[in-house]
Amino acid sequence: MSKVTCDIGMSLDGFVAGPNQSLENPLGEGAEECLHRWMFEEPEAHAEVIKGITAAGAYIMGRNMFSPGRGAWDLDWTGWWGDEPPYHAPVFVLTHHPREPVTMKGGTVFNFVTDGIESALERAREAAGERDVSVAGGAHTVNQYLAAGLLDELRLHVAPVVLGAGERLFVDVGDLDLVPVGMSGTELVSHLTYRVR
Amino acid sequence: MSKVTCDIGMSLDGFVAGPNQSLENPLGEGAEECLHRWMFEEPEAHAEVIKGITAAGAYIMGRNMFSPGRGAWDLDWTGWWGDEPPYHAPVFVLTHHPREPVTMKGGTVFNFVTDGIESALERAREAAGERDVSVAGGAHTVNQYLAAGLLDELRLHVAPVVLGAGERLFVDVGDLDLVPVGMSGTELVSHLTYRVR
Repeated sequence: MSKVTCDIGMSLDGFVAGPNQSLENPLGEGAEECLHRWMFEEPEAHAEVIKGITAAGAYIMGRNMFSPGRGAWDLDWTGWWGDEPPYHAPVFVLTHHPREPVTMKGGTVFNFVTDGIESALERAREAAGERDVSVAGGAHTVNQYLAAGLLDELRLHVAPVVLGAGERLFVDVGDLDLVPVGMSGTELVSHLTYRVR
Repeated sequence: MSKVTCDIGMSLDGFVAGPNQSLENPLGEGAEECLHRWMFEEPEAHAEVIKGITAAGAYIMGRNMFSPGRGAWDLDWTGWWGDEPPYHAPVFVLTHHPREPVTMKGGTVFNFVTDGIESALERAREAAGERDVSVAGGAHTVNQYLAAGLLDELRLHVAPVVLGAGERLFVDVGDLDLVPVGMSGTELVSHLTYRVR
């Protein structure tokens, strides 16, 4: 059966985004270059890991990961990723604001789900078929899925940095029963995979 | 040259001790059994790691790691570890209260240092000779040494648990330049070693 996975970059002090997220700094101050350096500087060394991240048949993300700020909902906004987002699959965006699906180049379709995380998962499972569903972020969305016991595999990509502030993973997730099932890494990142029981 | 090391058990959400530390729960509620299970249940699987922890020629610890509570200084108190503590070496306890050294069975001598972390390190280095100095904890003490740039190697023993509250590592440590230099583990713990540049 297909799994529900989550790949997320985290600092050693537990932040998956820095403080003061904005249009200029979608991941918050100082976070993008710290947390994801390994992806840009060493793509070949992490080819298997990156393949795993992009293998899902559908993705789920929070509204804050999809669009800037927490203010008005801009119907011209089609995400941070340009005309051809890297998902190449249906993406289900959790939001309180209904919106028609947006089809991008390369197979990414943004669908907007207003009736909660379980409904989003159900739709994503259906869209993914035999393939995995990936919860893409951000912190709050991953924490909701962890708290609800809906994740099967958590893949932390721990950068050897301390951010000091920002959005934390593992907030209000309750008791988790996690089993380490894999580790690898380089000087820029430690990949730690956990099965969620 | 000998190194200044730190071995510390940490939860996935960054806590090295649980909330409400007390005489009954020196590591705080729920922390001892979660964070250090691997030591008690799988000592053979982690023999090399445990050897590394106990190899130091001198140890430094905070006053809160040495004695219960934050109240009166009890001259009869000789630590949590019984007559023969596992250090078998000089231990330098950071405190504001002067006290004569206490010699225990098996080579552990508790020395009380009232003039700060640099003085404690100087005395520990002298006592350790060719061997490493280990900063044993707790969180606040390790954070002070990290912030001051005095640690050479940080060895995190990350248990696959979420504590949700307690004493955090990496608080107010400023910018750290950490390089992962080793990883190993089992289902109970991931050992992550970082060189501090």
